[in-house]
Amino acid sequence: IETQDDKALKHLLKDYHYADVAEILNDLELEDALYVIKLLDSETTSDILTELDEDIREKVLQNLSAKEIAEEIQELDTDDAADIIAELPISRQHEVISKIEDEDHKAEIQELLTYDEDTAGGLMAKELVKVYETWTVAGCLRRIRGQAENVTRVHSVYVVDKKNKLIGRLSLKDLITAKSDQKIADIYISTVDSVYVDEDVEEVAKIMAKYDLEAIPVVDRNKTLLGRITIDDIIDVIKEEADKDYQLAAGISQDVEADDSILQLTRARIPWLALGLLGGIGAFLIMEGFQESFSKYAVLFFFTPLIAAMAGNVGVQSSAIIVQGLANDDVKGSINSRLIKEMLLAALNGAILALFLFLFVFFYNGDLLTAIAISVSLVAVIVVAGLVGTFVPLFLDKRGIDPAIATGPFITTSNDIFGILIYFLIAKLILGF
Amino acid sequence: IETQDDKALKHLLKDYHYADVAEILNDLELEDALYVIKLLDSETTSDILTELDEDIREKVLQNLSAKEIAEEIQELDTDDAADIIAELPISRQHEVISKIEDEDHKAEIQELLTYDEDTAGGLMAKELVKVYETWTVAGCLRRIRGQAENVTRVHSVYVVDKKNKLIGRLSLKDLITAKSDQKIADIYISTVDSVYVDEDVEEVAKIMAKYDLEAIPVVDRNKTLLGRITIDDIIDVIKEEADKDYQLAAGISQDVEADDSILQLTRARIPWLALGLLGGIGAFLIMEGFQESFSKYAVLFFFTPLIAAMAGNVGVQSSAIIVQGLANDDVKGSINSRLIKEMLLAALNGAILALFLFLFVFFYNGDLLTAIAISVSLVAVIVVAGLVGTFVPLFLDKRGIDPAIATGPFITTSNDIFGILIYFLIAKLILGF
Repeated sequence: IETQDDKALKHLLKDYHYADVAEILNDLELEDALYVIKLLDSETTSDILTELDEDIREKVLQNLSAKEIAEEIQELDTDDAADIIAELPISRQHEVISKIEDEDHKAEIQELLTYDEDTAGGLMAKELVKVYETWTVAGCLRRIRGQAENVTRVHSVYVVDKKNKLIGRLSLKDLITAKSDQKIADIYISTVDSVYVDEDVEEVAKIMAKYDLEAIPVVDRNKTLLGRITIDDIIDVIKEEADKDYQLAAGISQDVEADDSILQLTRARIPWLALGLLGGIGAFLIMEGFQESFSKYAVLFFFTPLIAAMAGNVGVQSSAIIVQGLANDDVKGSINSRLIKEMLLAALNGAILALFLFLFVFFYNGDLLTAIAISVSLVAVIVVAGLVGTFVPLFLDKRGIDPAIATGPFITTSNDIFGILIYFLIAKLILGF
Repeated sequence: IETQDDKALKHLLKDYHYADVAEILNDLELEDALYVIKLLDSETTSDILTELDEDIREKVLQNLSAKEIAEEIQELDTDDAADIIAELPISRQHEVISKIEDEDHKAEIQELLTYDEDTAGGLMAKELVKVYETWTVAGCLRRIRGQAENVTRVHSVYVVDKKNKLIGRLSLKDLITAKSDQKIADIYISTVDSVYVDEDVEEVAKIMAKYDLEAIPVVDRNKTLLGRITIDDIIDVIKEEADKDYQLAAGISQDVEADDSILQLTRARIPWLALGLLGGIGAFLIMEGFQESFSKYAVLFFFTPLIAAMAGNVGVQSSAIIVQGLANDDVKGSINSRLIKEMLLAALNGAILALFLFLFVFFYNGDLLTAIAISVSLVAVIVVAGLVGTFVPLFLDKRGIDPAIATGPFITTSNDIFGILIYFLIAKLILGF
């Protein structure tokens, strides 16, 4: 395709959705991708830019002049525009902003850049359709035609008073079904959900998902209407959040993808592995401390990987349920009642598993006391692992720390050490070495 | 509040959103919840019903007569109605359906019940606004007023030909901004995304997220318009999918919540724990097989929990990245290139970690050969664990099995056994016992 046949290429790409073109460009060499972007007009390429992979976009933007970037930005909604500018180095940010011709657009983007990206302000767009309560339906429809040109999807029409304070909403449907001489003040719905500009994005996502909202207005503390957040941005938040929790549970500490470089992947993976190494050395030291019992109870040592694995698995299971419950806001009751429940649960699971282990050890090894020691320890280890797995995320959450870091290697490693220590202590008690 | 003061209670609840009322009812005793539901009118309670926790809803429905359920159903959109009916026992389903008075609504619900719940058909609603290409804008607005009364949110207006074949779409915005004597055929947009009725819901979610769609029409193979799916239902799909993958990674095999009963939680947790137990017994048998080297190389045995933990962690890390990449459709290239990359990555990580372990063992134990044997084995174990973690999900995905089951306990357990076996074999080779 890349035989410089511009016309054919343009024609070919015209029929594709920009998200598809972006996908194609992600797979091309940088040079070819740039060629295609310069070929197409900025109306199309600006949308493509927003859909590119972050690292590819960074390279593309490096190869465009500040003026070219400003032209792309001009075509974008304020939220996407601000996101792209925020990715540039500070010095280039100023250069690009100064090249934006539309003064209103420029001011709006500059305002959005002042908000923290993890807050409602960082997610919202300035594009919205608002009407004053004093307007009539007919006048309203006329003006909406003007405003709506800049707004990709209208969703709701927000009703404000003279001071731009949000007082209600209208759906387009209401507007179409109303008589044309009615006043907005008579037909608007005065209950309108809104979020404060400094609200955490995860909280915004929860509110929108709970009330099935497709757009939500963003206001400041005086209820002045500042912008709105649409559901497509919230979907990205939900997905990122889920991906992050999943990676944390798997012991990956930075946001990486399968196609990132080996060095990036190493940086994300090695911290937790190093933790695992330390845990393993801890387990080694414990076992070494009990080595005098080696000659007599060698069999005890052969079960340490089993004990460590069970402690780790139970810990991960119980912490995962708590972490997920906290994320979905459905963990109720006190920490104590939660711990008692987990203790009963772990004791039940532990008893079932210990029974099997007891039978195996007894028939394989023949020594009743050893079998009892190993299976009793297993129950104790599972109960403790369950309690640690339940307590740690609840504790982190109370302290305002993301409990998701508590799952995965962190719990596994501490439970490995705890588990093996408890195992040997109980075995020592029962076998009396 | 429950002093039978109906009026005050009604008044109090009137100002709450139904999602909030549902949350309150979830926390009440069944009897009290039922009391509140019977107190409120079916327009409100039907919405509340859809938001209740599944197990609470089941109990509430058991305590309502078929006629009462039918009244609730009447108020709901077809998709929510069908979902609730699908939860009832088969015999009650017929009873409830026969009590629905509105014949159209009944037929639509019955149609929806025929689709698999994991397909687009199972998710779609029959409520939508459609117009024929031959209508004028003015006529269209008039008719939309009628249709829109049954549709909570309009989103797009779908344009069909005489045979009900989907040929395009109109946004309400386009309709408002068009002149009233224009024909629909002249102003509609002919590119319209749609999904087939038997498409997998996860695929639908990907399409809607990729193209930032807020509603998508559902068609059969002849392109006949059957229904539409809105983004709020898709958000639920995305969340459920993320929750499920997270739980699978943590070794929880059924959809459970922190507040489920101990028996339910045990059922979800014990299968993976039993697998871990078997793995531990496997590790035991391997170690027992090498026990003649015990007296001389006791130190080797003390490091088995470390080896097992590292094998498990690396396996989970690499499988998590692949599982996530597969879910987001960004795993490119052949399985071979992927395995080579993971091998290099694991070798690099392994070499760094092995260096530390080597130093520790050498200075702690003083025996150079043992230190070499343990650290070389660690590298080998990490590489194999990485390869298994990469290969298994890719293989499962190729076979059409959900690769998410490959993370967590499954990978951990198999890597534990593999790891310990490799470790002893290499140590034996180097130390020559």
